[in-house]
Amino acid sequence: MTADGEATIRALAEGWATAVRAGDVEARLADYAPEVISFDAVDDLQRVGLAALRERLTTWLGSFDGPIDYSFRDLSVTAGEDVAFLHCLSHVRGTSVAAGKIDMWVRTTMCLAQRGDKWLILHEHTSSPFDGSTGRALMDAQP
Amino acid sequence: MTADGEATIRALAEGWATAVRAGDVEARLADYAPEVISFDAVDDLQRVGLAALRERLTTWLGSFDGPIDYSFRDLSVTAGEDVAFLHCLSHVRGTSVAAGKIDMWVRTTMCLAQRGDKWLILHEHTSSPFDGSTGRALMDAQP
Repeated sequence: MTADGEATIRALAEGWATAVRAGDVEARLADYAPEVISFDAVDDLQRVGLAALRERLTTWLGSFDGPIDYSFRDLSVTAGEDVAFLHCLSHVRGTSVAAGKIDMWVRTTMCLAQRGDKWLILHEHTSSPFDGSTGRALMDAQP
Repeated sequence: MTADGEATIRALAEGWATAVRAGDVEARLADYAPEVISFDAVDDLQRVGLAALRERLTTWLGSFDGPIDYSFRDLSVTAGEDVAFLHCLSHVRGTSVAAGKIDMWVRTTMCLAQRGDKWLILHEHTSSPFDGSTGRALMDAQP
């Protein structure tokens, strides 16, 4: 495991949180591999490639009326020489145009590899658990 | 990236699929680190440690009436010297005691590190996407 890799990836995570709070799609996408496979919380089993991720992210950031408060806790980073992963609980607060006030926690996993001197996200997985008895996503789950 | 690591982790994935089909909790848990953090599809944001994972897996395997058909597709493995990850789409079919026939796809991500000569799962993330307009888990999503 490398301390350098871990520090770089923690900085990357802080950068993505800053980009989400700023509603900045391109800054949020700065660290993805072109062939990224995304398992997102809503609507599709998977999205393949950066263009699909850009479309989804643009829709999501555009669904807020006003500022997005985005932060994470319990961030764990495991970095080897050239492969790494992180996971955390992400807190999203704001006002949705369609659904009103949002205050939800989701689970985030990011998987990375080093290409040249840059770490790139090859895979991300974001989700809500669902209630096994009702089939409804637990959008009010609290850590 | 190492070809040896990738082959070992593909074998590990085949092993867990075999263990699920056999309903064998302990075989399914053979490759986990004691401190594993699990983001599972239902009920809880996270489960911490092998005992919590064992309890969840015992409940889940016990919820089937008769055999479980479990397989995966689109398996991607990225293995470095001592850190690795995989993701796939997992297909679960069977009869649930509570809910009747189940035929669903979920997303699976596993994150691993090598300890001594053994690869261990430090983190797993399994989920269904939910319908953004209804809030219901998409248990009939097809790849």
